[in-house]
Amino acid sequence: MDPGPIVEMVTRCAGAGAQAIDINSGPLSRHPEEKMTFLVEAVQSATPLPLLLDNSNPEALEAGLRACKKTPIINGFSLEPRKISAILPLAKKYHADIIGYLLYPNSQVPVGEEDCIQVALDLFDAFKKAGLDNEQLIIDPVVAPVLWENGIHHNRSILSVIRLLPELLGFPVRTIAGISNLATGSLPPETKQKLECAYLPMMAAAGLSMALVDIFHRETLKTARICHSFLHPGVFSWAEI
Amino acid sequence: MDPGPIVEMVTRCAGAGAQAIDINSGPLSRHPEEKMTFLVEAVQSATPLPLLLDNSNPEALEAGLRACKKTPIINGFSLEPRKISAILPLAKKYHADIIGYLLYPNSQVPVGEEDCIQVALDLFDAFKKAGLDNEQLIIDPVVAPVLWENGIHHNRSILSVIRLLPELLGFPVRTIAGISNLATGSLPPETKQKLECAYLPMMAAAGLSMALVDIFHRETLKTARICHSFLHPGVFSWAEI
Repeated sequence: MDPGPIVEMVTRCAGAGAQAIDINSGPLSRHPEEKMTFLVEAVQSATPLPLLLDNSNPEALEAGLRACKKTPIINGFSLEPRKISAILPLAKKYHADIIGYLLYPNSQVPVGEEDCIQVALDLFDAFKKAGLDNEQLIIDPVVAPVLWENGIHHNRSILSVIRLLPELLGFPVRTIAGISNLATGSLPPETKQKLECAYLPMMAAAGLSMALVDIFHRETLKTARICHSFLHPGVFSWAEI
Repeated sequence: MDPGPIVEMVTRCAGAGAQAIDINSGPLSRHPEEKMTFLVEAVQSATPLPLLLDNSNPEALEAGLRACKKTPIINGFSLEPRKISAILPLAKKYHADIIGYLLYPNSQVPVGEEDCIQVALDLFDAFKKAGLDNEQLIIDPVVAPVLWENGIHHNRSILSVIRLLPELLGFPVRTIAGISNLATGSLPPETKQKLECAYLPMMAAAGLSMALVDIFHRETLKTARICHSFLHPGVFSWAEI
């Protein structure tokens, strides 16, 4: 319960160019509410950046939500019944944006474009039934490790899914993807880096709104900045890349 | 007229992993036909790879075509009247695939998606009038240097153009892009490399069929291989990347 290391890490993240901080507490087996409150307060003492809260325990998540000065993004829900019954209502209660994962109710990854799209429709249905506004939804199509049997096939499919989602749901739904998942497992560091740097622009070109990245992966971050410069009109300097 | 340096260069290109060789002779002011024949023969003596012939002089180009053992790709034509009248018929005569550049008749680059698409339709019209088969066409949307005033805007537009072309023309038209154009001009080498490595996957995700790259840009080549692995089903090893 020492905020020092957290403050130091968050300060480094902010200094490296993070635009938001994802607090993934892991399972907090003892005093989860108190610990989540501590985490949020420690992070907020170091940065005014917006937060994402990732905790599958609804009570701990709510404690985190209460501790936030600015409404965070809830990260997130899925078709898992416990998530629909206990996490989704928190987005309604706290007027928070919420990330929905394209996963089956048993948390398995759907493989192939059609299955992903069916899950997206089911997810949107649950989201609307919870009384939330379209603008609160952010969809995470769940990047798979390339070393998984169907990992590459899945990651190819979700490029189309990201592109199709706005038309499918009838509004410009935002999307987010955890880029580090891609290179999970036993691969040389250089291959991991190249994988992130090649896949991120493909997702960006497909219309990805946000990327969850390791902010200390310098090459990935540079790639993200170049993609942003390419895809969003604005004034910038190549020197900043 | 010494084939030595050409043989050496082509051998290095093939060794670095080239899948085809683009022979861009530049303007051959004296004895253009003889020189083009010499170039093609020198390259063919070093490699069995398929060739692309880039020469705006129809006589020199035809000499090159005659010297080719395997039918090359003609690189290429545009709406420039001289190209339509003298280059396009060579594709018919030699049953060669031909690259069509999305450029105005005065060789200016169209800016914006709509203008590019209009040029593509005009180009396809000229192509069909020359009696060629759809399968012979490869479209080059012309990557612009990012340092040009509208360079980034144009390069963003052509991502959509590449994606839309097959539906627009009614068949799976192939596309090619010269990636090195992107970083032409005064930019730090590291920025040039990052630009190529970020833009190529965006084009690949949009459906680009072929990339014309500097085969000695190792990072760009690795990126191209990763994109290929992602986008085309098949068996491969990460160790080859």
